[in-house]
Amino acid sequence: MPSRVLVFTWLVFLFGHYGWAIWPIPRSLLTGTSPVKLSPDFVINLQGLSNPPADLASAISRTQSRLHSDSLERLVLGRGSGDAQAVEGAHLLSSLTASLQHGSPVRSIAEETTLAFDDKSESYELFIPDDRAVATLVANSTLGLLRGLTTFEQLWYDYKGTKYTLEAPIQIHDEPAFPHRGFSFDTSRNFFPVADIHRTLDAMSWVKLSILYWHIIDSQSFPLEVGAFPELSQKGAYSPEEIYTREDVNNIVAYANERGIDVIMELDTPGHTTAISAAHPEHIACAAKSPWSKYASEPPAGQLRIASPSTLSFARTLFSSVASALPGTMMSSGGDEVNLPCWEEDEETMADLVQRNITIADALNEFVQTVQGVIKEHGKTPFIKSDMVLTHKVPVVNDTVVVVWQTSEDAAAVANISLRFIHQPSNYFYLDCGAGEWLGNDILGNSWCDPFKTWQRAYSFDPYANLTTDQYALVLGGQMPLWSEQSSAENLDPIVWPRLAAGAEVFWTGSTLPDGSPRLGMNATSGTNALARLHELRYRLVDRGVKAIALQPKWCVLRPGECDLDA
Amino acid sequence: MPSRVLVFTWLVFLFGHYGWAIWPIPRSLLTGTSPVKLSPDFVINLQGLSNPPADLASAISRTQSRLHSDSLERLVLGRGSGDAQAVEGAHLLSSLTASLQHGSPVRSIAEETTLAFDDKSESYELFIPDDRAVATLVANSTLGLLRGLTTFEQLWYDYKGTKYTLEAPIQIHDEPAFPHRGFSFDTSRNFFPVADIHRTLDAMSWVKLSILYWHIIDSQSFPLEVGAFPELSQKGAYSPEEIYTREDVNNIVAYANERGIDVIMELDTPGHTTAISAAHPEHIACAAKSPWSKYASEPPAGQLRIASPSTLSFARTLFSSVASALPGTMMSSGGDEVNLPCWEEDEETMADLVQRNITIADALNEFVQTVQGVIKEHGKTPFIKSDMVLTHKVPVVNDTVVVVWQTSEDAAAVANISLRFIHQPSNYFYLDCGAGEWLGNDILGNSWCDPFKTWQRAYSFDPYANLTTDQYALVLGGQMPLWSEQSSAENLDPIVWPRLAAGAEVFWTGSTLPDGSPRLGMNATSGTNALARLHELRYRLVDRGVKAIALQPKWCVLRPGECDLDA
Repeated sequence: MPSRVLVFTWLVFLFGHYGWAIWPIPRSLLTGTSPVKLSPDFVINLQGLSNPPADLASAISRTQSRLHSDSLERLVLGRGSGDAQAVEGAHLLSSLTASLQHGSPVRSIAEETTLAFDDKSESYELFIPDDRAVATLVANSTLGLLRGLTTFEQLWYDYKGTKYTLEAPIQIHDEPAFPHRGFSFDTSRNFFPVADIHRTLDAMSWVKLSILYWHIIDSQSFPLEVGAFPELSQKGAYSPEEIYTREDVNNIVAYANERGIDVIMELDTPGHTTAISAAHPEHIACAAKSPWSKYASEPPAGQLRIASPSTLSFARTLFSSVASALPGTMMSSGGDEVNLPCWEEDEETMADLVQRNITIADALNEFVQTVQGVIKEHGKTPFIKSDMVLTHKVPVVNDTVVVVWQTSEDAAAVANISLRFIHQPSNYFYLDCGAGEWLGNDILGNSWCDPFKTWQRAYSFDPYANLTTDQYALVLGGQMPLWSEQSSAENLDPIVWPRLAAGAEVFWTGSTLPDGSPRLGMNATSGTNALARLHELRYRLVDRGVKAIALQPKWCVLRPGECDLDA
Repeated sequence: MPSRVLVFTWLVFLFGHYGWAIWPIPRSLLTGTSPVKLSPDFVINLQGLSNPPADLASAISRTQSRLHSDSLERLVLGRGSGDAQAVEGAHLLSSLTASLQHGSPVRSIAEETTLAFDDKSESYELFIPDDRAVATLVANSTLGLLRGLTTFEQLWYDYKGTKYTLEAPIQIHDEPAFPHRGFSFDTSRNFFPVADIHRTLDAMSWVKLSILYWHIIDSQSFPLEVGAFPELSQKGAYSPEEIYTREDVNNIVAYANERGIDVIMELDTPGHTTAISAAHPEHIACAAKSPWSKYASEPPAGQLRIASPSTLSFARTLFSSVASALPGTMMSSGGDEVNLPCWEEDEETMADLVQRNITIADALNEFVQTVQGVIKEHGKTPFIKSDMVLTHKVPVVNDTVVVVWQTSEDAAAVANISLRFIHQPSNYFYLDCGAGEWLGNDILGNSWCDPFKTWQRAYSFDPYANLTTDQYALVLGGQMPLWSEQSSAENLDPIVWPRLAAGAEVFWTGSTLPDGSPRLGMNATSGTNALARLHELRYRLVDRGVKAIALQPKWCVLRPGECDLDA
């Protein structure tokens, strides 16, 4: 490490606004005070890889392209003009040399991305000198190189076409605190075109998110083309145009994997399945039964007939058909919000229970173990929603991952039964909260999870809250969900961005900042710094075509700290 | 009226979902049950006007174009396919004949739009026969014809390129309950490009809104090019690209006026003026003074020096320069949220007060009467914010219109001092509420006007609440505002639409539905009907390129009533 790397960034932040636009903030970051600019013929060279994986070459090409097209000026008064003189005399960087550490396996980014968490490395080291022409990026995986390229892209501001930083030399050692950093995306309540999912994946990759948790089907529509049951989407999708064909799914999964994002598909069962009744009414109890509020958490009611051997067989084939078509080592059977009256008042279910001499609880256990068994047969780790293990006490296999969603308080309860889990608490992370009631005739109603979850709220989340230190290893990370009752392609970007980036930093950087200080909390300075960096990310997202919302008046953006609560 | 017009629409609504996509609902609407489709060579003919105003010809041309390009299928299960047979055998409509009533003056739409409320007519009569080839539209103004064309466009569904209705004959007599039906648009906290304002004006015209209340400047930026003081925008705008030049303003006003929308520009004074200090620091007290919370309702602090003769002269010239460049008969001097400590601690202001031997209250009265006097000198009616007359008891001239904003409760207080007013209550109409606190370091804060104002909330507003019948005439209408601290072009459409349409119907259709029943309230059927019509409007907006949010899952949209609270 060069001796001129003098200033620890966190100290710099205490004394003024420096324009770091890196989000999430690296685990270790040292910066200097020298200006460096990219040479007009700046190139990224891959060293020691005579035949690099195609998706790595593509990633480098995308970075090259964005280094050229990004036009974010520094968010200070006067914008880039104040830096003109420094830029003029800045040291010239001619290239970035990217290489794998000696002895590292050479695999595609997609292959690295779909490895099990324990086998996956996202770490990288990046160095931007202020006295030499070549920057260096080293990692022990192509996925790590991708993460490093993503950081490299965020270092540069534009001023009249010149790309520069004022804070060389820059030394970064980085790796995520948690492997699971996700976005849970509901494409059933309303449909989202493939192009919108692509754009979302791009933006996710820019903040180093690692998981698209795809809640692809629900009671309202069944947009997934299933090889074994094409009739499910033919009859259960909103329209022929609102189906993810097998080609679409392959395309989306490949697009994600090449960008460092693994896809966990959730087939939410046995509740949230009414849309199956369009093609297979024989498998659904209480389908669209009225009043829905007695039989479901939202309209329409409908659950798989868990006691029916025929339905069990259908579910087994459904999961097998979907699992066999997906790469990756994880898949979810969902399991939230099952409703007992739906089954208790269903003649067929009651007849099955009597005939087989079992209870609803027995049938639920059998159902969950069946579908989770299919997931495991396909070499994947099963995910399940927390109410299934906490409320319904369904026994699950040891390596199951629990999605803790009802409240952040549930995390400790899941830890106490020694299951691994991810955080998705409705009281911190739900992107859809606060938009008002969507049910008809509820004139003054608000959303069930009011209020709106601000980026600050999400950012203040502590992944280790209420856990003992020996339970820390159970935390795999977390994800922020968008439930789409009131969302569609029209508001996707503004409802997701930049708030989703708050979750990205929580789970990349961890429960504290690199210097050990709280990420947010009542620490005014760190709060302002996060906001300043998040503004930069937001403006960069907009610059790249993602319609992220404004977090403050631009007056405040250009004057960090002056719009604080007590400024 | 033909005898086959049998069914009063409101009764139809009681028995099933009919696909009326008319929003706002006309004051009188009779419908039949016959299918009618537009001939492939359908034309709109203007009768009795050999040399029609250019903006009327353009409006007809836009309607023709939208009749062709609109592709909204009926929002029912199966969409248009269920109507195929009816469409096949439908009666063919070859033309719409539009004409002015005998003796009506022939003026451009823009001229009609900018008339004083008392001189303005927006009424029209529209008849779609089921047994003849020609529909008729009659009005006594070109503005009325525009309103009728707007309704005509909403009557038609698309099925494979054929445009049809199932409910001919259709007889409509329509006119607004209130002349002022507005959108208040803040373009200072964040800037909005002209193209976004154009698109917003288009959508406003489609729901017959009549007023763009343009809150163009504020403390954060001064994007308005002022003839007398070009330095205000040169130094006070966020950037040279974020200025509304005089050409832009003329363009926006003309674009609005041709679409039936008058523009009321608000120069919010004497508070909310910090941005003036960039060019004229001598006129601003407590500019960006810390802590802002002591001197202003939000950062940055700053108010005009109301006691300074030089500042009074500046304000007079500012208002005169802006007023003289604008058509229309209304303009606002704002006046909300003035802060006394800002002046009390300002040396210059205190010196002026002492020298002139007046109080702050005297100076405030003088300031308001000065700027309102300039507005009146230019033949315009002055608007003012309600706290200026209720809190500060500033005497205003009789024809002043008060913008009631703090709470709906204030309307009665304004009525009690016999001033005319418009409704803009924060507890019903603020589009920005509920998005969380935007101040830095307020981690768990929510917006001051939480919760989110749903369309239902806005729609449930009663313009006559708490008024005596002889005060009804004081109500000119109302408007829904977007304050843009957390908004920009990126989320403009989804935060505004379709919620703004709720206000449009409240003030077009009035305090009750045409049959006298409450517009909303706990009446399940009318609530559902409004939602069904609002879905249709929302889908039509999206079809026309306005990114309006989804109000419900599409499953609910296609099944009116099934997602009601107690369905």
